[in-house]
Amino acid sequence: MPEERIVALLHGKDRAGIVARVSGWIYARGGNILHADQHRDRFEGIFFQRVEWIPAGPIEEEMRLFKDFAERDVGMEAKLFRSRQRHKIALMVSKAEHCFSDIVLRCRSGELKCDISAVISNHDDLRPLARLFGLPFETVPISKENKPEAESRELEIIKESGAELVVMARYMQILSENFLERAAVPVINIHHSFLPAFAGANPYQQAYERGVKIIGATAHYATKDLDEGPIIAQMVAPVSHRNNVEEMKRRGQELERQALANAVRWHIEGRILTYKNKTVIFD
Amino acid sequence: MPEERIVALLHGKDRAGIVARVSGWIYARGGNILHADQHRDRFEGIFFQRVEWIPAGPIEEEMRLFKDFAERDVGMEAKLFRSRQRHKIALMVSKAEHCFSDIVLRCRSGELKCDISAVISNHDDLRPLARLFGLPFETVPISKENKPEAESRELEIIKESGAELVVMARYMQILSENFLERAAVPVINIHHSFLPAFAGANPYQQAYERGVKIIGATAHYATKDLDEGPIIAQMVAPVSHRNNVEEMKRRGQELERQALANAVRWHIEGRILTYKNKTVIFD
Amino acid sequence: MPEERIVALLHGKDRAGIVARVSGWIYARGGNILHADQHRDRFEGIFFQRVEWIPAGPIEEEMRLFKDFAERDVGMEAKLFRSRQRHKIALMVSKAEHCFSDIVLRCRSGELKCDISAVISNHDDLRPLARLFGLPFETVPISKENKPEAESRELEIIKESGAELVVMARYMQILSENFLERAAVPVINIHHSFLPAFAGANPYQQAYERGVKIIGATAHYATKDLDEGPIIAQMVAPVSHRNNVEEMKRRGQELERQALANAVRWHIEGRILTYKNKTVIFD
Amino acid sequence: MPEERIVALLHGKDRAGIVARVSGWIYARGGNILHADQHRDRFEGIFFQRVEWIPAGPIEEEMRLFKDFAERDVGMEAKLFRSRQRHKIALMVSKAEHCFSDIVLRCRSGELKCDISAVISNHDDLRPLARLFGLPFETVPISKENKPEAESRELEIIKESGAELVVMARYMQILSENFLERAAVPVINIHHSFLPAFAGANPYQQAYERGVKIIGATAHYATKDLDEGPIIAQMVAPVSHRNNVEEMKRRGQELERQALANAVRWHIEGRILTYKNKTVIFD
Repeated sequence: MPEERIVALLHGKDRAGIVARVSGWIYARGGNILHADQHRDRFEGIFFQRVEWIPAGPIEEEMRLFKDFAERDVGMEAKLFRSRQRHKIALMVSKAEHCFSDIVLRCRSGELKCDISAVISNHDDLRPLARLFGLPFETVPISKENKPEAESRELEIIKESGAELVVMARYMQILSENFLERAAVPVINIHHSFLPAFAGANPYQQAYERGVKIIGATAHYATKDLDEGPIIAQMVAPVSHRNNVEEMKRRGQELERQALANAVRWHIEGRILTYKNKTVIFD
Repeated sequence: MPEERIVALLHGKDRAGIVARVSGWIYARGGNILHADQHRDRFEGIFFQRVEWIPAGPIEEEMRLFKDFAERDVGMEAKLFRSRQRHKIALMVSKAEHCFSDIVLRCRSGELKCDISAVISNHDDLRPLARLFGLPFETVPISKENKPEAESRELEIIKESGAELVVMARYMQILSENFLERAAVPVINIHHSFLPAFAGANPYQQAYERGVKIIGATAHYATKDLDEGPIIAQMVAPVSHRNNVEEMKRRGQELERQALANAVRWHIEGRILTYKNKTVIFD
Repeated sequence: MPEERIVALLHGKDRAGIVARVSGWIYARGGNILHADQHRDRFEGIFFQRVEWIPAGPIEEEMRLFKDFAERDVGMEAKLFRSRQRHKIALMVSKAEHCFSDIVLRCRSGELKCDISAVISNHDDLRPLARLFGLPFETVPISKENKPEAESRELEIIKESGAELVVMARYMQILSENFLERAAVPVINIHHSFLPAFAGANPYQQAYERGVKIIGATAHYATKDLDEGPIIAQMVAPVSHRNNVEEMKRRGQELERQALANAVRWHIEGRILTYKNKTVIFD
Repeated sequence: MPEERIVALLHGKDRAGIVARVSGWIYARGGNILHADQHRDRFEGIFFQRVEWIPAGPIEEEMRLFKDFAERDVGMEAKLFRSRQRHKIALMVSKAEHCFSDIVLRCRSGELKCDISAVISNHDDLRPLARLFGLPFETVPISKENKPEAESRELEIIKESGAELVVMARYMQILSENFLERAAVPVINIHHSFLPAFAGANPYQQAYERGVKIIGATAHYATKDLDEGPIIAQMVAPVSHRNNVEEMKRRGQELERQALANAVRWHIEGRILTYKNKTVIFD
């Protein structure tokens, strides 16, 4: 078993010498840097860094000291993780099973270091599959009328489950601004088009009607503006006049699975920083 | 040298037995079908076919007879080509040279069976390159004020050149509805995004600001509605937060070159049928 | 529910008029052709066709008549399917679960019109997962010494299960020539490289050592010559110096899943013809 | 015009603190690091870094001091470039023009910061095109008998031209080990397959016969072992049974152009380090 590593994600106002100071600090304390990647947005004057190292001292202590150093001395916002940490995630689903079972199997096989602490759906369709996988499944029917109460119930389930991330695995409801604020954890959604093309409902139908030669899928953080959140991952595939809407959907599902799985993996591995409605992905 | 072939593009109201009748007719007259490809839009009830064959009789006579048969007996609209035919094309360019030189070199090398009969630009920048290639080059400066006269001059050049196709190789002006009607030949444009995303001006800047992970290029027939014409070819490539607008442009130029070259080749080889603002590509 | 269709796969010596005669026959009997696709290998003089139609008469009768016509009158070899037919398949697996669970879930969701009639493994590792999915699972340990008996046992299981297709979903044993002959059903294998590169064992290790910038996966029919059978589907993805063997494996698994799923789908939908160790795929 | 930058490429035995020391040195001398990227081969224990910065002092002086520091104090091998430097390259061609004209036009347009100081061919076919572009062109016919003398003549031309890089733009001769040693500059070759598949002659023919569903192109440094040198860039595209060898060639040419152009650009921008017959590409 490899030694446990610290992963730090930093960002803040760009200035000279940040890389030198961060790597110098770790080096001085006997840490062994395995990966270090940084990015500057020159136009915005923002600096981003992901650094992963094996500490020489006790891991929690080193994390505390580094966070202090990064925030106080270097003026960066800092998020820190332990590499062996497992993440609790809540899945929100509707009727489509392809993204749901894909995420579940990647967790089972160890590819995603996640535990699924809750599955929430507005329909009962996936309950048997969830039972098969031994997962808790809660149906919360949702309608125009009961939306506030339904969302409150969903938030309750998420909180009780201890989830640090909500994954909308083709959950076909719009989350309200209020929900997103109260959730207090990030929410990743998968949209079945190469955004910003074909935002909104029925993107494959829209794509078919427009006659595009490429279809896609987009994983993004959910924000109050529907389909407008920071894009994490996009996948595309060619189509032709021979492909009807059904075939586009089938091909699109491959893209949705992969874009969503990549987004979740990058998120839990501490590879994503967001700013100005964009993402920096240290993959 | 291979024998000359007839290429027929048919489309019309779908009904039973079209394939049987078309192939039966050619077979009965001793023709040897090399390729036959068809498509049905079941929802719209339209039939499309491309068939390519070596006739047993004199080629012009066979073409005339087949056209009669297809239109009168089968009720299809029919366009016919001879496979050895060379096509005259007019290029419209502005300052960017990558699509211009790409098309020119593909014509020179024989990959595109085209002769460039005119190059029209609203700027002088590409004149030296056109001279290098031995091509006629006409500068037609264009402004809000002189647009109608400028377009009339452009149309004059196109007509005199005998061009059967106009290729906008990064021509950075919007052609008026009047121009498109009077041109009376198809116009292919290359847009530097994966339409319908980022229509309009500065698509790479738009893509950068939205933070997409995929950029693209779209070749389409120009119509009066800007960036809304039938899509012929789309190419995409991945980008990341590391790629600034300049780098996106550089990568995008590869996509533009290829999407435009494919569109022109398919057009002159009689592989494209358009309907309902979409294309059927028999590639 | 759509009407049931007949799918015919034809191939044989190329001659003039085959398309006309086949489509003419179906038309004359009141059939409605939905798809027809053909291919000629001019060099070899072989004709290939896939045609799919709704018959006017009783389906079994029409199939019998068409087969007679195609074989006797047109001189083609003909395979016929009913579009609603479900296919029984046997899966052979070892320890890796990604292809196994992928195929199972695609069958469950209806994407693949297959029933899994047997799962055979040389290890016990996937037994719990098979049980979860409610699938029969037989462990047949295999070694140099017991190979003939082990293969006989495997063949027994396959025969009893009624499988019409064997899918090696990362089964890490070489099937003997004797096995392949006696199986009497097609066998599809997934190899974890873009064949013919990196045939044999440990292809990701080989790829890493050679420093390639692309990895891939290849689904092919198994033949007596290892990794030399007709290629059905290939998928590729970029890699860089940053990707170690483990990461290559992870990325490669996505490709393996998709290439294998495509190969199985095309096979059961009657879209594949093989000749001269190559495939014609009517997708 | 942006300020001139120093680009340093370092590699050597991995040890703790290299990043800290390199960035610390530049920071201490008032330099402004724009990009820094590093890689460790943990198995081999080698460290690689590319760092690009705007120096505060006179550029030549800073380069000299940094090289001293990197080599003496950090124990790295160091190559340094100035970002505005233009590179002289010699092109070797045969009859195919697509890679030749592609490289020429990318140099003309400024995309590649290169001057073509010599064009050498074993045939006269591309002389008119070279003349069109205003390039010096030398024909050196080559045969089994005159190979040593012919190669000596080629080396003479390369040396006189001052080329720092030789680009084999579809030069269809094998360079001898003796040539490669005496050339004393790197040689980049483009092979028309996704190596290691289909090394040697006629790769498209080989690919066609094997029935692959993917074709490719590989740019690599030429070494004495034919088609075995370190791979720099690979591009792939799908093909099907419909594509004959000619069509594969046409599609492959797109890939060759792009793989070769990327390889040349990365080389002259100091983005490539080679070791153990592999490349690290800091793109």
